[in-house]
Amino acid sequence: MKTTPEVNAARLLKSVADFAAIGATPAGGVNRQALSVEDRAARRLLAERALARGFAVLQDEAANLFIRREGRDAALAPLLIGSHLDSQPTGGRFDGALGTLTAFEALEALADAGIETDRAIEVVAFTNEEGSRFSPGCMGSMAFAGVANVADWRSARATDGALLSDELAATLNDLPKAEIRPVGHTISAFVELHIEQGPVLEREGVPIGIVTAVQGTKWLEVAFSGEAAHAGTTPLEFRKDPMAAAAAAIARIQGDVMPSDPDARLTVGRIAAEPGSINVIPGRVSFTVDIRHPDATILAAIERRVRDECQAAGERLGCKTVIEQRVDMPPGRFSPHVAQAIEDACAAQDIACRPMISGAFHDALFVNRIAPSAMIFVPCRNGVSHNEAEFVSDDHIIIGARALLGAVVKLSSG
Amino acid sequence: MKTTPEVNAARLLKSVADFAAIGATPAGGVNRQALSVEDRAARRLLAERALARGFAVLQDEAANLFIRREGRDAALAPLLIGSHLDSQPTGGRFDGALGTLTAFEALEALADAGIETDRAIEVVAFTNEEGSRFSPGCMGSMAFAGVANVADWRSARATDGALLSDELAATLNDLPKAEIRPVGHTISAFVELHIEQGPVLEREGVPIGIVTAVQGTKWLEVAFSGEAAHAGTTPLEFRKDPMAAAAAAIARIQGDVMPSDPDARLTVGRIAAEPGSINVIPGRVSFTVDIRHPDATILAAIERRVRDECQAAGERLGCKTVIEQRVDMPPGRFSPHVAQAIEDACAAQDIACRPMISGAFHDALFVNRIAPSAMIFVPCRNGVSHNEAEFVSDDHIIIGARALLGAVVKLSSG
Repeated sequence: MKTTPEVNAARLLKSVADFAAIGATPAGGVNRQALSVEDRAARRLLAERALARGFAVLQDEAANLFIRREGRDAALAPLLIGSHLDSQPTGGRFDGALGTLTAFEALEALADAGIETDRAIEVVAFTNEEGSRFSPGCMGSMAFAGVANVADWRSARATDGALLSDELAATLNDLPKAEIRPVGHTISAFVELHIEQGPVLEREGVPIGIVTAVQGTKWLEVAFSGEAAHAGTTPLEFRKDPMAAAAAAIARIQGDVMPSDPDARLTVGRIAAEPGSINVIPGRVSFTVDIRHPDATILAAIERRVRDECQAAGERLGCKTVIEQRVDMPPGRFSPHVAQAIEDACAAQDIACRPMISGAFHDALFVNRIAPSAMIFVPCRNGVSHNEAEFVSDDHIIIGARALLGAVVKLSSG
Repeated sequence: MKTTPEVNAARLLKSVADFAAIGATPAGGVNRQALSVEDRAARRLLAERALARGFAVLQDEAANLFIRREGRDAALAPLLIGSHLDSQPTGGRFDGALGTLTAFEALEALADAGIETDRAIEVVAFTNEEGSRFSPGCMGSMAFAGVANVADWRSARATDGALLSDELAATLNDLPKAEIRPVGHTISAFVELHIEQGPVLEREGVPIGIVTAVQGTKWLEVAFSGEAAHAGTTPLEFRKDPMAAAAAAIARIQGDVMPSDPDARLTVGRIAAEPGSINVIPGRVSFTVDIRHPDATILAAIERRVRDECQAAGERLGCKTVIEQRVDMPPGRFSPHVAQAIEDACAAQDIACRPMISGAFHDALFVNRIAPSAMIFVPCRNGVSHNEAEFVSDDHIIIGARALLGAVVKLSSG
């Protein structure tokens, strides 16, 4: 009779392939944006497999999906593991899905081995981590951690025009068998496995990163308003051209602000000009700025510089400048206790690992506010993520699942 | 019994108001883009009024609409007058419509006075002058002048996704009573009245501009391709950011190239980033450049500089640069004979006028290639056009119509 749980490599790799087929793109990635029909299909598949294994399926009002395997002592708070299932519009197969599916594999491995843990273990798929279809990202984990309320976003509109409240309801109704629980229940700890989405582990040949902290992130939305006018008849001195202001500001942000600090990350991912005619000087140009830095003080200083550059460009070009902050996530420090459990699990299985800081934000950053949390990173090829070319080797998938399972065994004992 | 035709001011002003109501926007402008349902409604109204006055209604395969009043001598080629009825998405009430409606008023004034002209007179509304919904602009007049064929654009897609061939057919079918004629018939001359779309006439207090030449125009479409990647985890040295390249290039175009020549006009009216997520470095950024100058040699030199700036920015940021030319219209010189007829008509009615160069391109620029042509400009407030705030005073509308009618009388005699 078996006593130690084992990752079923073939089952896990098949599971990764099965979920990659949901919202699959011709280029080999996935388009499974939050609360879309593809997202619902992935949640449905996970729920079906859970019920088939005799696990409980629950949802909260933020449409966070939970798969629960009971423990010996119902008085103990459950251990939470998992990640998210939604993707970027041209996303990869592993961002989010890998953390959710290795967590589910851990539950199945424990069941295979007939092991009864002291505390219950729950696998979670948090809602809208990516923030691409509905802004902001990490809605599910923010609601779970009490950082924000679902009600705050009910009237949020998707890039495709859909209303959040409608898509949320449709997603919940899609799993009628799932029990509805209140948002944010007590847990003992949280472990999230995720791809690094950066180049460090691959370059150093280390299969496991133990994430001890996360970069802070600020999202700004900048809008310049000038005066729409005819492209051919309006001399320079008559122009109030918001495109000229936007180009000048972004050129400074990318050309001066970002190079001034190697730890700074500044990205303009979205831009729009209105009315958007070739032969009309735009009346309005708006764009987003994603700012990240591991140090809260420096992060705030960079935000001020970005705001100053935009204000200066707007004034120089005779445009009205409006800057709104959409997201403000301070840098976060994870739990040394949970990190230690991951490290011990690696040591016990002779898996090489190293501590690191996450350049991306994750659901664990929010869950960490209400329960001790940490993350496991696995390498992805060339550090490429948020891209259809995103790739993780089978070996790294399996090693990651083993590290997670080992940590789960340690953290689920009372 | 009347012997000289008179502009019916009340009828003309009502006609301008009636057409402004078709596609009217809340801000007082019009959205009547080429071949749209609004465009069709405006053409229908013009055709109905023509039939009510006993004028003939014809269309060619480019959906150019003609209203014909017969002359004494069927052997003489008709005189063509008019402009266009389509507008920018956030356009004004006068751009195009004023030239078409003052031309129709000239026909009615001649009919009111019972005057029989030697040659027939045709009012034209050319198809898709604006080029905002379907590119390029001036499709109707280019086809009429034999510069291009309708067939070249059949597969063109509108910004709203519609196929040109479908919209063209729907527009033609919308006027079943109109006789279909081949594209491009012989005419004796062409006169187009239009708003200046610039500040000169208003600033100088001159009600009529006689346009002797038109600026040359080039439209470029620039695309930078880099590598989509995660905004938070990709350090500067790993980035191939097409947004950084676009911002640098546009900043140079607006900040250096345009100020270097007071006659140069450079406009970036449209820009798009893909995939367009706040937290993803774009994989591709594309934008348009509208370049204008009255001197063909300098215009070509400016285009080379724009191309060089874009290539340099692309290389510097590690992006692939693709530049395509969409439109290339050389500067044009109008007919001194037609310009003289306009000047004589103004002199005979004590209307002040001045010669000028058009900053915008117009259908007359193409018609001028197959028949002697010239244009009449009237002032618009603050030179504002391609804007819902576009405004022309009643006085200037009426003075413009009188100048046009006077020129029509001169040019319609055999």
